[in-house]
Amino acid sequence: MSAVLTVNSYFNDQVKSIALDNKEGTSTVGVMAIGEYEFGTSQREYMTVVSGALTVKLPASDTWDTFLKGDMFIVEANQSFNVKVEETTAYLCRYE
Amino acid sequence: MSAVLTVNSYFNDQVKSIALDNKEGTSTVGVMAIGEYEFGTSQREYMTVVSGALTVKLPASDTWDTFLKGDMFIVEANQSFNVKVEETTAYLCRYE
Repeated sequence: MSAVLTVNSYFNDQVKSIALDNKEGTSTVGVMAIGEYEFGTSQREYMTVVSGALTVKLPASDTWDTFLKGDMFIVEANQSFNVKVEETTAYLCRYE
Repeated sequence: MSAVLTVNSYFNDQVKSIALDNKEGTSTVGVMAIGEYEFGTSQREYMTVVSGALTVKLPASDTWDTFLKGDMFIVEANQSFNVKVEETTAYLCRYE
């Protein structure tokens, strides 16, 4: 039997994710409820929108960019970035 | 504040999912651990592989087909289908 799948919750349960390890690497898939969040990274993150949209201010940016289903953005390790979520959104976050 | 995100577990916690409603409709994102599963549908399901691979025997089929990252298959309502998971796999399931 495989290890039990780990679910994590953040921001008072407004963001939840499930961890996975496979050939692609180590990732989480998760859902963000409508709201605004500031995330910190400990590794490089490859964030892909799976359903919905994320409006993001990346660490080196003064502007907000909107990423739609299928779009991906990268955040380096030890950075923080801001996300506005205007509809409930599913994402895949791969760590490197 | 948005409603709390709902997490569901199936098959002795070997499959877990998080529900979401957005402009695309009603979906779950989830993870399947390595194993074999038989799922039943109550609505039409649009299943997309988000990371990993699913080997599937669809209701009308005698053969197994493998769906990779980005691939999608449809299962009509009130059907059952079989899935073999050879690496931990993330999916998006949209209901209609």
